[in-house]
This record gives sequence, C-alpha cells and structure tokens, in this order.
Amino acid sequence: MKRIVLALLAVAAVAGVVACIGLAYGQANQEATPIFVNKIPPGYRDWRLISVAHEEGNLNSFAAVLGNDVAIKAYREGKLPFPDGAIIAALHYGHVPSEENNKVFGRAQSFVAGAPTNIQFMVKDSKKYAKTGGWAFAHFKDGKPGDEALMNTCFPCHNQAKARDLVFTRYAP
Amino acid sequence: MKRIVLALLAVAAVAGVVACIGLAYGQANQEATPIFVNKIPPGYRDWRLISVAHEEGNLNSFAAVLGNDVAIKAYREGKLPFPDGAIIAALHYGHVPSEENNKVFGRAQSFVAGAPTNIQFMVKDSKKYAKTGGWAFAHFKDGKPGDEALMNTCFPCHNQAKARDLVFTRYAP
Repeated sequence: MKRIVLALLAVAAVAGVVACIGLAYGQANQEATPIFVNKIPPGYRDWRLISVAHEEGNLNSFAAVLGNDVAIKAYREGKLPFPDGAIIAALHYGHVPSEENNKVFGRAQSFVAGAPTNIQFMVKDSKKYAKTGGWAFAHFKDGKPGDEALMNTCFPCHNQAKARDLVFTRYAP
Repeated sequence: MKRIVLALLAVAAVAGVVACIGLAYGQANQEATPIFVNKIPPGYRDWRLISVAHEEGNLNSFAAVLGNDVAIKAYREGKLPFPDGAIIAALHYGHVPSEENNKVFGRAQSFVAGAPTNIQFMVKDSKKYAKTGGWAFAHFKDGKPGDEALMNTCFPCHNQAKARDLVFTRYAP
C-alpha cells in the first residue's frame, strides 16, 4: 500500500511536468536547505504560453504550462540551462467532457478544462537550489503548499530529464 | 458522402472553439461583405491564456486558447457581448503521446502538443461583421487562410452559442 501511495505521489509530481517548490530537503542528516517556498509567484496567470499537457489515468489532468519572461526568452532562444530567474508554471485542471460543445458537434469528443486542481512551479536559482539541480519546486492546492511527502517526489522525478535541465515541457510554436 | 464531408467541416470549424475569418459571405445573392481576412493578427503568440481544449475523433486536436488584452479583460469581468477589438486565438496542435514522459511515469498516460495543425481566430467588430453576429472568423494552416467551403461552416456553428456571444471557450481561472 505504501508503495502504491508513493507511486501515486510520484505520478502526481511529474504530472504537470513541473512540480512542488522547496523540496523538503531539510532532513536531519543534511544541511538546512530551502524547504517549502510557500508563496505563489505573483502575476503567473498573465504569463505567456509554453505549451499544453494532458495526463490520463488517475490524474485525468489538463494543463496549461506558462513561463515568466525569463523562461519564455530561454525557450524561444533554445538556451539550456535555463537562466536564474526563470519560472515555469503548470496550471492544472480536470480533463472533463464538454456537454455543451458535444451537443453542437453531435457527438462526444470535446474536452475542456474543469475545476482547477493545483498549480505547480519550477523556480530557477542555480546557487540557492544547487542541490536540486538549480531548481526549486512548488505545488499549491487551493492556495496551500504541498506536504513534505509530496515535495520529496519532485526532484528525483525531474532529475530524470537532465538533458533538458530537469524540465519536461517542450515549447509549442 | 456530401453530408459526411459537411459534417466533418462543421466539426473542424467548431474544433478550436473559434474559427475561420471573413466568413465567405459574399455569395451572389448577398451584399458584398468582408470575405477572407487573410492576415494573422500580429503578436498573438504572446497573448494571455483563456483556456485549453481537446477534441477526440478525427480531429485529435490539442488547443491553447489565447486572448488579446480586450478579450482577456472582458472574460475576467464576465462581460458579454465581447467589445469591439476583442480577438480570440485557438492554437491547434496534434494530441500526441509523449514517449519520453511515459518512460518516466512508467506507463502510457502522458499527452503533449504535437506538430501545429492550424491557428484560428475570432475578431469582434459589431458593425463590420454585423451579419455574422459581430464576429469575423479566421483559419490558417501553414500560414494560409482556409478555403471558402471551410469558412462557410464557421458562423452557423458558432451561432449556436448565442448565449455566450458565439464563443464556446470558457475562461479557466
């Protein structure tokens, strides 16, 4: 059961392709490092589009992935690693059928963003977050940051995308 | 066969929830009205997010729906009808599985934006486009506007969303 829960958490973490801030990395046997960054970056809803994403299965999530100016510039210039100051946001919603659209279509095929489920961020600061690849991760549900168990899943998962500076989402033209 | 083709065109039109500019409305038995607006609105890729959309079936499309400042303001204030100057853009991509994400997940569940398929716009000008509910519609594939048969499907379909000023897409918070 514990393994299932951990697996689900890992999936939840990679979900939006970005995840959880702070990275509960302050275990007793480690130096104190930034734990939870529990402030939502201001203005993120006005940021520009990086791409869209959809996860099936238990997540059933629909995401818009946005970037602040630093992140968008780096994406468009194809520069890796991302420079300090880059922030990537994944706005997650339910992936729900649209009855009103399907009525017009005459068949069930239309899916839209349902209720918001969480917002996740990756914040680049190569010195401050050196232990976690230069990134802090954040997860907010109803405005509240994710708990330590969830936050611990972020870095190990994103670290599998080392070739892309730990960022899963590619830029959509 | 003709009915199937027309149905497919209707589906293609509603797809992005916005569609085709100009609305080949210049048939012989009608006054000359703006036909194809064949210029892509500049700067649309920097516009802010309205929502995301996904169509299954033949379309298999993944959309990011963006709005210019006038459109975003109207959405956020919940004002209908949309004021003149509002432009809504639907950036369509293929809805494709992400092998690289699935490898990390350990199962097939991740979908991302594939190659761009088309870009569609709705442009509000209540006087200029009075005959089509105040909206012009546009469709661009590889930078080229849609043909007349496609353009003719836009308005009749969107006109079914009269209660929402012909706009299907709802704002995602």
